[in-house]
Amino acid sequence: MNSIPQPTTNLMLAHPWWQREDLKYINRRLYLAGQSLEQIAKQVGTPTFVYSTQRIRENIKRLRVALSQTGLEFDIYYAMKANRNPSILTHLAANGDIGIDACSPKEVLRAMSCGFSAEKISFTGTSVSMDDWNFLYRQQGIKINLDSLAALKNYGAYGKGKKVGIRINPALGLGYNDNTLLRYSGTEVTKFGIYQEQLDEAMAIARFYDLKISRVHFHTGCGYLNQQLPVWDEILAASLEFIDRLGNINEVNLGGGLGVPHTSNDAPLDLSNWKKIIHRHFKGKNIRIAIEPGDYLLKDAGVLLLQTVYLEPRRDKFFLGVNGGFNLAIEPGFYQMPCEPTPCVIKGNKKIKVTIAGNINESVDIWAKDIDIPEMNTGDTLVLINAGAYASAMSSNHCMRGEFNEIVIP
Amino acid sequence: MNSIPQPTTNLMLAHPWWQREDLKYINRRLYLAGQSLEQIAKQVGTPTFVYSTQRIRENIKRLRVALSQTGLEFDIYYAMKANRNPSILTHLAANGDIGIDACSPKEVLRAMSCGFSAEKISFTGTSVSMDDWNFLYRQQGIKINLDSLAALKNYGAYGKGKKVGIRINPALGLGYNDNTLLRYSGTEVTKFGIYQEQLDEAMAIARFYDLKISRVHFHTGCGYLNQQLPVWDEILAASLEFIDRLGNINEVNLGGGLGVPHTSNDAPLDLSNWKKIIHRHFKGKNIRIAIEPGDYLLKDAGVLLLQTVYLEPRRDKFFLGVNGGFNLAIEPGFYQMPCEPTPCVIKGNKKIKVTIAGNINESVDIWAKDIDIPEMNTGDTLVLINAGAYASAMSSNHCMRGEFNEIVIP
Ligand SMILES: Cc1ncc(COP(=O)(O)O)c(C=O)c1O
Ligand SMILES: Cc1ncc(COP(=O)(O)O)c(C=O)c1O
Repeated sequence: MNSIPQPTTNLMLAHPWWQREDLKYINRRLYLAGQSLEQIAKQVGTPTFVYSTQRIRENIKRLRVALSQTGLEFDIYYAMKANRNPSILTHLAANGDIGIDACSPKEVLRAMSCGFSAEKISFTGTSVSMDDWNFLYRQQGIKINLDSLAALKNYGAYGKGKKVGIRINPALGLGYNDNTLLRYSGTEVTKFGIYQEQLDEAMAIARFYDLKISRVHFHTGCGYLNQQLPVWDEILAASLEFIDRLGNINEVNLGGGLGVPHTSNDAPLDLSNWKKIIHRHFKGKNIRIAIEPGDYLLKDAGVLLLQTVYLEPRRDKFFLGVNGGFNLAIEPGFYQMPCEPTPCVIKGNKKIKVTIAGNINESVDIWAKDIDIPEMNTGDTLVLINAGAYASAMSSNHCMRGEFNEIVIP
Repeated sequence: MNSIPQPTTNLMLAHPWWQREDLKYINRRLYLAGQSLEQIAKQVGTPTFVYSTQRIRENIKRLRVALSQTGLEFDIYYAMKANRNPSILTHLAANGDIGIDACSPKEVLRAMSCGFSAEKISFTGTSVSMDDWNFLYRQQGIKINLDSLAALKNYGAYGKGKKVGIRINPALGLGYNDNTLLRYSGTEVTKFGIYQEQLDEAMAIARFYDLKISRVHFHTGCGYLNQQLPVWDEILAASLEFIDRLGNINEVNLGGGLGVPHTSNDAPLDLSNWKKIIHRHFKGKNIRIAIEPGDYLLKDAGVLLLQTVYLEPRRDKFFLGVNGGFNLAIEPGFYQMPCEPTPCVIKGNKKIKVTIAGNINESVDIWAKDIDIPEMNTGDTLVLINAGAYASAMSSNHCMRGEFNEIVIP
């Protein structure tokens, strides 16, 4: 009978590119924030997401340091669509130095229920319904960004005299690996934000309803890294044209979209370059800066633990099957975002090339194709890194395989 | 200010290609199984899925008639991964002429809880874990199809002397519009089923554990229509090679994958051709036939009702925003499956070309691009047809926009 083929390489295994002080192998066991992931898998089983709030705080701090070096006033809102785990939200609210970006009434309620006051919440929705508006009208203090002329009218009908933000569409987009699925504006016309040529009409609506447009918002894509910084530069320049035409803007929300490395070829986003671009465009303008990252704060703060359930050669591939599928973390299957599978415990001294398959009866349900990982056996725990954002938050119960645990390390 | 642009065409609007006796406009109002969809939207709100069990029964009946014309013995198992609504499952169990295809322990439990006895349940999972096996071992009477050598060993360790099925991989695949995302086998090596060259080993494992392989199973893709019937023919021929080599096979499960029309260019699957191919390959072989369709039974039996929340021109497109997004029905956004949006009530005499946008802050969240529909206003109910399968079943709470109602018309 076939058995696991001879491992082909013999590298130093315990130093993957993504290792860092709080996520590393110690004696061949992977630890996150001082906790043995193997221990957690043993105690609570799999599938299990494990999140480190310490890492989230570090990610926030790194952004705060960079932004404070611009000399500009600024706020950070966490885009909770990335991960709405109540315990994480509670930690962030208690920490006090961050607000929330919410995009639906239920998100606003969740944020409030975890301790965020209305003043700390920024709302930027799309296709906002009358039911949504009726909820939002009642939320005094929340910052509302209106992403279309229709939204401006709907809010105007209620909000006479109020200050509002508008989401603009600079017709430029950016995203991880220039993946078009991750672009929110660009050459193709998108649903997000008011275009240049709509600005006169937007101002007319605002005048009609006596709304004061005091804030500009844009969010142009997800997962941008250093390669995309030249476009980032163009986007900020384009936003200034909107700001100049609007006049009286005292706050600009630059959106989220800051990426984290997904493969050994990705360098981390160079925040000193990033903040220089912000500084160059906004210095001396007396405009408060806001950002609303999701990925950048959460993605590398979470991992997903799965169990290896079989190992088997099939033609030119060697399959490693696990007890969780793309319904738990949709990005590898649908957005081609690498998830860097790695064993919880490194047992041998060799690597094997595997194709990692989930337990959903669908052909897209492949975690990774032909990747080299330290050898593993049936029953071993596999760790997917970068599972802190847009994984549990977008999970479904497809095939009734949707159950998982979440452990938050405080 | 901009208003809705002049509608461009002036066609007979009330006769879309998908109309049928139980889903049609009567006095410009759309009815499903005799119920006014507008009335339902008024009563229960939106988003709401509406399913007709009568249509499901008709779809089953059509298949039964075709299969009975083959002169072969046969069974139909409903692939509940398409839609696990308990009320629908209860109707199907009470009806008595259909079994269930389940792919996870939780699906088996759901089927049982809705009235299916073990004998009526066929299980074909993938990446089945030891926890799953421990559950399955206890389910006497369920038909188990093993999709890998590992699964054969795991089941063998428990099932000495038992009859089992194996899922085979004929290395041929088919799918709607030849969409590779919908193919389960084919040129690329997939995780599903045992390949030809693995058959000797599979038989050795079976002998070792005294398992009797009496059934062959394959499922090679989703959404196939007439264009794909030549490949269907090849697949059945290929399956016979497995069957001949295995010997003693008395049942073959041809899987699901039967498609329904998604656009006016799609002709319905010609069941008389389909069943002829089955007949040609299996006549006189004393083999019982099984199929396990999901889409074919459920997809056109369900619609999704959404509310129009805005209409607005943006550059070369005219956007119609609705109060539901791709998290409620993933196929249009991710698999490029058309969903044919149409108004609940036809008001004017004109058509407009619209791009339909959902309420999720993601660029993939577009229901349809530049399609012609009868004109609509804000507040009107939009109907997406073909929403009975793989919509609610795969839904997520992304952006906390995951709530919906389900109405089952008995
Ligand atoms: C308006 C808006 N802000 C912020 C974000 C967060 O993006 P990211 O997680 O890439 O930082 C999103 C993501 O969809 C968004 O749509
Ligand atoms: C093994 C198996 N059988 C049946 C089905 C049902 O397929 P369909 O809904 O296309 O008929 C699927 C779908 O994924 C499947 O994987």
